[in-house]
Amino acid sequence: MTVDKVLNKLGQDLVTCRPEDTVETFAQLLAKHRIGAMPVRDMNGNLVGIVSERDIVRAFAKSGGQDIRTLIVQDIMTDRVLTVEPSDSMERARQLMTKHGVRHLPVVKDRKIVGILSIRDMLETRLEETELERNVLRDNVIAARAR
Amino acid sequence: MTVDKVLNKLGQDLVTCRPEDTVETFAQLLAKHRIGAMPVRDMNGNLVGIVSERDIVRAFAKSGGQDIRTLIVQDIMTDRVLTVEPSDSMERARQLMTKHGVRHLPVVKDRKIVGILSIRDMLETRLEETELERNVLRDNVIAARAR
Repeated sequence: MTVDKVLNKLGQDLVTCRPEDTVETFAQLLAKHRIGAMPVRDMNGNLVGIVSERDIVRAFAKSGGQDIRTLIVQDIMTDRVLTVEPSDSMERARQLMTKHGVRHLPVVKDRKIVGILSIRDMLETRLEETELERNVLRDNVIAARAR
Repeated sequence: MTVDKVLNKLGQDLVTCRPEDTVETFAQLLAKHRIGAMPVRDMNGNLVGIVSERDIVRAFAKSGGQDIRTLIVQDIMTDRVLTVEPSDSMERARQLMTKHGVRHLPVVKDRKIVGILSIRDMLETRLEETELERNVLRDNVIAARAR
């Protein structure tokens, strides 16, 4: 299974933000779209980072009296981002997530952001594939016994 | 597979907070333990709610100028909590999560909190079980062909 097939199936509304957005605006986007992370893009649509609800929690945890409403996305985002391409396999996405302990991978084509994959999307896709394989094999075993 | 078997396997350090903890203290606990949610307990160790990083984001998103450092856990937690018992099946946990759209289920025995299950724990457990079933069936098919 390739990344683009999974993105098509998810029918994702891609939500992004800009490095200069306030953290409050970013939180409002997360809440409105009921998501946990989003890619950060520059004015040309190029990927410049990734930012998640966990980044808000971390910034708040170490704010030490500072009001986090004064922060912008650039202050809390991760700017060295692992990515996959639409033509990559889901197995590659899985290996990247596992090896680097990340929960989200932006999907990028020609530096432009086309989607985002979560560890949950990855697990659900693998589960569906494995269930399908199991069911086919089970049918084989039943058919073999009937012979 | 039962819930207690999965909890044993996860070897979870159970982290909880109290309704009167500040949201800042709660955020510090989340960050320190690298988790996304925790059960809320009263002074007797009884479950009184569940609170997640998403609750912080939502509170922040709708703060409208209010400083969220003035909030306590009770202000943002969910107090009507779905739970499972250690002897429940993981299938029951899955059905509850799917039906009610929740991502975390506290595990409770005699009203005391003994753990918490995430949707990721649930998906990973199901994936492992399905992979095992698939592998056993595959061996069966290969053995049948060799006869």
